Amino acid sequence: MINPKEAIDIVVSSIERLETAELDLESAAGYVLAQDIVTAHDVPPFNNSAMDGYAVIAADIADASDESPVTLKAVDELPAGKAAEIGVEPGTAVRIMTGAPVPDGADTVIQVEKTRSENSKVEILAAMPAGRNIRLAGEEMSAGSLAVASGTLIDHVVVGILATLGYAKVTVYRRPRVAILGTGSELIAVDEPLAPGKVRDSNSYALTAQANEIGVPARRLGVAVDTKEALKEALAVALDSADVVVTSGGVSVGDYDYVKEVVEELGGELKFWGVKQKPGKPLAFWMVGDKPVFGLPGNPVASLLCFEEYVRPALLKMMGRHQLFRPVVKARLTHDLKKKPGRVHFQGARVIHDGSGYMMAINGKQGSAMLRSIAGANGIALIPADTTKVNGGTLVEVQLVTLPEDH
Amino acid sequence: MINPKEAIDIVVSSIERLETAELDLESAAGYVLAQDIVTAHDVPPFNNSAMDGYAVIAADIADASDESPVTLKAVDELPAGKAAEIGVEPGTAVRIMTGAPVPDGADTVIQVEKTRSENSKVEILAAMPAGRNIRLAGEEMSAGSLAVASGTLIDHVVVGILATLGYAKVTVYRRPRVAILGTGSELIAVDEPLAPGKVRDSNSYALTAQANEIGVPARRLGVAVDTKEALKEALAVALDSADVVVTSGGVSVGDYDYVKEVVEELGGELKFWGVKQKPGKPLAFWMVGDKPVFGLPGNPVASLLCFEEYVRPALLKMMGRHQLFRPVVKARLTHDLKKKPGRVHFQGARVIHDGSGYMMAINGKQGSAMLRSIAGANGIALIPADTTKVNGGTLVEVQLVTLPEDH
Repeated sequence: MINPKEAIDIVVSSIERLETAELDLESAAGYVLAQDIVTAHDVPPFNNSAMDGYAVIAADIADASDESPVTLKAVDELPAGKAAEIGVEPGTAVRIMTGAPVPDGADTVIQVEKTRSENSKVEILAAMPAGRNIRLAGEEMSAGSLAVASGTLIDHVVVGILATLGYAKVTVYRRPRVAILGTGSELIAVDEPLAPGKVRDSNSYALTAQANEIGVPARRLGVAVDTKEALKEALAVALDSADVVVTSGGVSVGDYDYVKEVVEELGGELKFWGVKQKPGKPLAFWMVGDKPVFGLPGNPVASLLCFEEYVRPALLKMMGRHQLFRPVVKARLTHDLKKKPGRVHFQGARVIHDGSGYMMAINGKQGSAMLRSIAGANGIALIPADTTKVNGGTLVEVQLVTLPEDH
Repeated sequence: MINPKEAIDIVVSSIERLETAELDLESAAGYVLAQDIVTAHDVPPFNNSAMDGYAVIAADIADASDESPVTLKAVDELPAGKAAEIGVEPGTAVRIMTGAPVPDGADTVIQVEKTRSENSKVEILAAMPAGRNIRLAGEEMSAGSLAVASGTLIDHVVVGILATLGYAKVTVYRRPRVAILGTGSELIAVDEPLAPGKVRDSNSYALTAQANEIGVPARRLGVAVDTKEALKEALAVALDSADVVVTSGGVSVGDYDYVKEVVEELGGELKFWGVKQKPGKPLAFWMVGDKPVFGLPGNPVASLLCFEEYVRPALLKMMGRHQLFRPVVKARLTHDLKKKPGRVHFQGARVIHDGSGYMMAINGKQGSAMLRSIAGANGIALIPADTTKVNGGTLVEVQLVTLPEDH
C-alpha cells in the first residue's frame, strides 16, 4: 500500500491534458483557453468621450467662467455609435455623448452641466484643460498586445474581453467525458422498492453530480451486478464511450470483488491498489491505454472522498486547469480528536474564519459509510498517518472546499 | 441618490422566492430543496456486515484462539444483495460479505482473516464480542426521521442521501429565467467588423456568463439601438419571456438614454435610480409586476460589478438560496490608496491568506471601463464613502469571490 501523496502523484503524472476544440464564445465559459488572445486593434478603437458634453478646443475656453461664458457655434451632434464627420475648428463645438468618437480638432470635452445651449450656439461656463474627459484609443489595450494568455480559465470577465476583441470563436481544451458505473448485486435503482438484502444505489447519482459540479459532463451507466460477465460488458461500454471511467464498489478483497480482475482483462495497467487512508483504503487506479480508470470503494463516503481527492484533480488536469487542488490552510481544532495510527484520515469539517484565523470542528459521527456525517462540510481535515491524538486548539491542515464564512 | 446598502435592501425586499417544481433526481443538483426529506425506512434497512467474514454467535467463539480454534459448521454463504434464508444456530456459521444482511441468530461477525475454511467447516481463530462488525438497521437514519430539511442546497452529498432514500423525484424551487439586453447604437455584434464610431458589445456576453456561473439560464437578446421604439420592442420581448430582465447601457442622463422612460411606459415602477457608488452610479431598478428589471450602466466593469452586487443576490433569493452574499472578511491592504469622498468604491482585489490572516492588493489601473483591470480578481474591496485615504497595512473589508490561496 502506498500513501495518499504517492497515490495522487501517480494519478496526476499518468494523465495528460486533452486535445483542443474550437467553441462559440457563448459556449466557452468554464473552459481553459488554448490560444493566446491578441488584440487586432486598439481598445478603445478611437478616442472617445467619457462624458455627455461638448467637444471643444481647450484654448478656446481657457477664460470661460459662470460670469463670463464663452460662446461657441455648435456644428454637429454625435450620439454614441455615429462617426464624426465634422471637425472642431476654433470658435466651434460639437455636442457629444458618452462613448462617441471625439471629432478631429477637439482636444477636450466639457460636461453638459457646465454649458448652456441655445439654438445653434452653446455657452461654455468653465475652462477645461486639454485631454480631459477623453478616453484615448489604445488606452486599455494597444493593437498587437497580448490580452489574455493561453491557459487562462474563461470566466465572465474573460468572456467580456473576448467579445470586445471580436473573438466569436475560441480554441479551448476540451472537457473529459466521464462514465460512472456502480457495482454490487445488493444495489437497486432509486425508483425500485426495497427488498430483503437490497439497498439503493446512491453512488452513481452522487458521483455524477460531483463531476457536474466542476463542469464535467458525466454519463451515469447505472449498476452492474457482481458477476465477471456483467462487469466486463458494462466496463467495455464505459471505456468505449468515455475518456475517464469511474466505478464504485467491487475493489475490496471479497470473493465477489471482480472489478480489478475485469479491468485488467480489458487491458488495464494497474498503477496502484490500496492507499493508506481512511476512508478509501481499497482505492484502485489503472490506465487503459490513455484512459484513466478509477476503482472507488463502494461505501458512499469513501467513494465521494476518493472522487474529491483523486478523480477531481485528474479531470481538472485533463481540462487544462492549473489549480488542481483545493487550497490547504491551517485551522485550529475546536475539540480533541483520537485516531488509530497507520493511515491518513480525511474528515469532513466545518471551517470558519474568526477574523484572525481559521477554526474547525470535525463533523460528528464519522462512520465512513454515513453520507449525513459529511453533509454541510466545507472542508476536509487532513490528520497525518502517525497521529493518534490531537488536542483541541491545535492547528490542523484542512482543504477548503467552499468559502468559510466570517464570524 | 441612495447608498449601496439601501439599494441592496430594496432589491432583496422587492423580490420573492419563485414557485416550486418537481424534478428528476438526476437534474436536481444545484437547486434548493422545497420539501423536507423524511426517511420512509431505516438506513441501513437491515442489520448488515461491515466486514467479509463469518456471521456467528459470540458465545460460541468466546474461547477461540490461534492455538485452540473453535470449529463451526458453515451452513450458508451470503454475498451482498442476497436475503438471509438460513439462520445461525449454536455450532454454526454463515459466510458473509460486506453489506450482506446478518442472518437471524448471529450476533457478531468475525473477519475472514481470523478464520480458516475447510469444505463445509470453518475454524475460528479468535474471540469476538457480540455486536462487533455489524451495522445496525437504522444506525444512520431511523424510519420517519428528517434526513434533509427543506431549504437545503442540493449538492452531490444531498443527491446521494436522496438516492439512498428512494427520492427519484424531488420538489425544488425553480430557477429564474433571465433575459439579458445590451443597449447602445455604438454596439456591434462580436462577429461584425469594426466601423467608425462602433465598438463591440461585450456586456451581453459577459452578463450571460455571469448568470450561468450561479446556475441560472440566461437568454442573450443581443443589442437594442438607442431609439425608444427599438428599446420598447426588445424590452417587451424580454419581459414576456423571462422572470428577470437585465439591461446594460442607456440609464445615464444623456439625451439618448431611453431605458428609464421605456421601462416605465411598460409598467415599471421605479424603485431607485442612482447609487452612491463607484463604479455603477447610474444603476436603476424597477419592478414590472413581480418581475425585477435591472438597468445596469453601459460601461463594462460597472455593468459586471452591478450584476455581482445586486442582480446575483436577487437571483439567488428567487432560487430559494439562503446565503445571498459573498462572505466579507477583513484583509490587510498591501499598499496605500487614495479616493475622492462621497461614494463607496468597489474595487477588484487579489486576496491571499498568509497563514495568519488575509492580505490584499487592489488591482492596478481601476479605470471603471477596463475589463482587464478586474481580470483575475478574487475579491471585491469595499472602500467606504467617506474614506479619502487608506494607508498600507490597514484592515479593509473585502467580499471573497473565490477561495484565497494560502501563501
